[in-house]
Amino acid sequence: MSKRIIIIGAVALGPKVACRLRRIDPDATITLIDRDSLISYGGCGIPYYVGGDIADLEGLYSTIAHAVRDETFFRKVKGVDVVTQAEAIAINRREKRLTIRHLREDREEELEYDTLVIATGATAIRPPFPGVNLPRVHTVSNLHQAKAIKDMISKGEVENAVVIGAGAIGIEMAEALTDLWAVETTIVEMADRILPQALGRNIARIAEKHLQDNGVKLLIGEKVLKINGTEETGVESVETTAGTLPCQLVILATGVRPNSELAAGAGLALGKAGGILVDNCMRTTDPDIYAGGDCVEVMNLVNGQTILMPLGSLANRQGRIIASNINGSCEQFKGTVGTFCIKIFELGFATAGLTFDQAKAAGFDPVYATVAQSDRAHFYPDSEFMFMELIADRKTRRVLGVEAAGPQGDAVKARVDAVAPLFQYKADVSDICTLEAGYSPPYASAMDIVNNAGNALDNVLNGTHKPIDALEFTERFENKEIRVLDVRSKIQADPFVEKYGDRWISIPQDELRQKINEVPKDEELCLICGSGPRSYEAQIVLASHGITRTRNVQGGYGMVIATHSPLV
Amino acid sequence: MSKRIIIIGAVALGPKVACRLRRIDPDATITLIDRDSLISYGGCGIPYYVGGDIADLEGLYSTIAHAVRDETFFRKVKGVDVVTQAEAIAINRREKRLTIRHLREDREEELEYDTLVIATGATAIRPPFPGVNLPRVHTVSNLHQAKAIKDMISKGEVENAVVIGAGAIGIEMAEALTDLWAVETTIVEMADRILPQALGRNIARIAEKHLQDNGVKLLIGEKVLKINGTEETGVESVETTAGTLPCQLVILATGVRPNSELAAGAGLALGKAGGILVDNCMRTTDPDIYAGGDCVEVMNLVNGQTILMPLGSLANRQGRIIASNINGSCEQFKGTVGTFCIKIFELGFATAGLTFDQAKAAGFDPVYATVAQSDRAHFYPDSEFMFMELIADRKTRRVLGVEAAGPQGDAVKARVDAVAPLFQYKADVSDICTLEAGYSPPYASAMDIVNNAGNALDNVLNGTHKPIDALEFTERFENKEIRVLDVRSKIQADPFVEKYGDRWISIPQDELRQKINEVPKDEELCLICGSGPRSYEAQIVLASHGITRTRNVQGGYGMVIATHSPLV
Repeated sequence: MSKRIIIIGAVALGPKVACRLRRIDPDATITLIDRDSLISYGGCGIPYYVGGDIADLEGLYSTIAHAVRDETFFRKVKGVDVVTQAEAIAINRREKRLTIRHLREDREEELEYDTLVIATGATAIRPPFPGVNLPRVHTVSNLHQAKAIKDMISKGEVENAVVIGAGAIGIEMAEALTDLWAVETTIVEMADRILPQALGRNIARIAEKHLQDNGVKLLIGEKVLKINGTEETGVESVETTAGTLPCQLVILATGVRPNSELAAGAGLALGKAGGILVDNCMRTTDPDIYAGGDCVEVMNLVNGQTILMPLGSLANRQGRIIASNINGSCEQFKGTVGTFCIKIFELGFATAGLTFDQAKAAGFDPVYATVAQSDRAHFYPDSEFMFMELIADRKTRRVLGVEAAGPQGDAVKARVDAVAPLFQYKADVSDICTLEAGYSPPYASAMDIVNNAGNALDNVLNGTHKPIDALEFTERFENKEIRVLDVRSKIQADPFVEKYGDRWISIPQDELRQKINEVPKDEELCLICGSGPRSYEAQIVLASHGITRTRNVQGGYGMVIATHSPLV
Repeated sequence: MSKRIIIIGAVALGPKVACRLRRIDPDATITLIDRDSLISYGGCGIPYYVGGDIADLEGLYSTIAHAVRDETFFRKVKGVDVVTQAEAIAINRREKRLTIRHLREDREEELEYDTLVIATGATAIRPPFPGVNLPRVHTVSNLHQAKAIKDMISKGEVENAVVIGAGAIGIEMAEALTDLWAVETTIVEMADRILPQALGRNIARIAEKHLQDNGVKLLIGEKVLKINGTEETGVESVETTAGTLPCQLVILATGVRPNSELAAGAGLALGKAGGILVDNCMRTTDPDIYAGGDCVEVMNLVNGQTILMPLGSLANRQGRIIASNINGSCEQFKGTVGTFCIKIFELGFATAGLTFDQAKAAGFDPVYATVAQSDRAHFYPDSEFMFMELIADRKTRRVLGVEAAGPQGDAVKARVDAVAPLFQYKADVSDICTLEAGYSPPYASAMDIVNNAGNALDNVLNGTHKPIDALEFTERFENKEIRVLDVRSKIQADPFVEKYGDRWISIPQDELRQKINEVPKDEELCLICGSGPRSYEAQIVLASHGITRTRNVQGGYGMVIATHSPLV
């Protein structure tokens, strides 16, 4: 008799398991079950549908060859049975039976399985704000919600929107609303920065400034108190710790929680974060039940903790492994280093590993360096600044995290994707200094920004580089707590000297050795150049002359204007 | 007394050693020596100068802040002495003295050193063709030659050019001549493909077609016999095994040989390929003499052989290591996996590790898979095909090489750069299947092309995927040796059926299970779809019905038209 495999959940991981399994086992009976009527869609595409990059909702659940991925498609093309609008409500593990409820008919049914796959995903959190269930307060977790939001906006019913939560979905939705629809949008985030799970303060600040420059309002470090409105008119305003925001639409983007109740009800073990626990083969504590995707916890390969990491990319890779293992293999999913990327208007951001704060929380002693560098050979046309931050443990010099930003999103992603696979091998800073990335003038510098980030961090760890973040620099400079030594050319420095007088000293790099005597010795001095290397070199020249109370602005003036309004 | 360090060679590695050493040792006496008058230039930028992307020659030896990197710059800014137009002619290792000849004055001088660094680079090969020394027969290895070539072209003196050698420089020069100057350019390459050291036949063919589509003529597998011309008029034509090519300019781009005579003369050990042998610390067989850059051999981390790898990117990374080690550290340069990238007109190419041929020559049993996939989520606007080939050893499944091509060069490079660092850890195909690359619809698919290349190769290794290269397919189809089963939609397949009759059978994927009886069983059948996955699935469906004499066109029709003129 052929094996009966039931897969609960038909988005991302579920279909992947089903299709792969059909390819490697032509005889199995494979059934996909889902609560929804729409299945196998690209949920990550929702903001691009709302923002108009994708014209039709159908584009999100069609194949590249424009076939709609519905029940008929799965049956005829993939040889997989699909039952939609059916909820799995109980697992009888002893008898290997699954109880489902058909939602249209409100009828229950029992199905026998040999192997079960739980791919129930995650549900967007609805925080317990008063008014959170008012009309026009939406999460963004399925296509019906996506359509409702887009219909509302395209009818011109929304002038102001509030997005609660500055994670990836919140930011992408804010961009969609602002960019295509010119909806006045405010993001409210209670952490001290946007993308707090993914970025440290420096790179996050580049993203914040860019959002603001593109018309998105940010309330950072503020909380939502209440959502006002009526059942008839829907939401009218959002009350926050920074005041009241009138709006006709609220997007809730405060994260997701794993749908693990079914598993818990069946006595399967959950992890600390509430996700289903699985071994490296993606098996739950019941050997006949696999689980994967947003409902499970995965190993963080940097700090060794199991965590929730709800990413479609991980789900797809796990899906293939589950199918192989159901078929008798023992393939492994070792875990994640949390590689992540996002496009925000005209900039790309990418990150992997731990942020500074996460590294600290995990018991490391993190040290970082921030660099700015051209994204092509500096002599190649149209090269622009890319920014990178590299984080390592002080004692072991093990690299713990990397973040990058710049206008060439693919190039930004390239750098992070090249560093990320090394985390699981416990690579140290030297490995980044010599990391071999492809070089050609249209794509990179001979000394790639990745290598220079490694070198900069090596210099910080060795104590030869005493840095100051651009953020701290601008704050302290504006508070008149520090003076600046600018080693750029006269032409570049003159407007600053004119505006700030003796608070902004100009000595071009090629005159510094001759003019050492003009440098103030008895005060803290911030050194600055265009992107950091010349002022770092100046720091060393000054140190060799006994002038050691200097700090070098990391990423130079390039980083200053990426994170702050221009100083002149 | 301060340490005396002499560095022979002031391009790429030499200046890097000098500047880094000055930063970490303020007291050393550091002298850079070079034969040329122009130093510290970006030699890789020469084709972009000739092609007009870089307007002034000075751009290639200026800093990002537009400072010209000449003797004065190095003295005033970097604290390094530079002696130009001086050739190092002998090393007296016992007395630690270097003899140099000042070329302007034809005068010799002896310099004492504590540590010597040999950074003499490589010299473009002038093959012994009759006529190779005629006027207007140029190599492209320094800025004087670059200027001579550009001057000649910009005066309109060149209508036809011949480039001998289809390595990176040859191709980049051909693009420069064709693109900006509309010079009719022919590349002559004696290997069976262009970029034979970097690419296998499949990805190389994409590059060849793209060059041809952009007007560059290719003579592949042909040899140069003779260069005709006179001392007065210069070159007039190039005679090849495929006929005579009239031309007013010849570019010699047949590779370089390491400048290791000075080292050899001093009794330092050379490797098999003629480069200077160094240990992991970049030290020659004399502990007081370091060497790096194009004149040394480096460890190929895939096959364990020392090889020549003349890349500016490696030179820069080695330079930092040499400086640190002169100053008492023991930093290591472990070797190279040969990561390489190149822009050819509108396509980007990247590669790392061994090609199929190189893997075979190194004693592996290489197996490869070729995939085509959208370079963004397929529902995201403007996504285009990217192509990737992954090569592994059959027995150990160790990944040996990766190649990629596509219109988004940064995205192509991203994929190769993410795979390349894994080679040194002896990663296997499973590691590529689960490789964690950042995912967001504007930049990638949830199942990245890297993962799918791993999966495709896994399927080939497991025997479930029986592929045929698009190259072999088009050749055999045009020879009427094979028939095709096209599983794309009717609309896509109909024009082919119309043209080729019963040699091109159309059964859309969603009808295949029902129409199994219409599939010919007794002959070899090539399965095709848009990019490969649907026809792979068809192969499995057919196999489950006993139809096993099928081969799946790798990369589908997308790969066919990337490598061949359209079939309809």
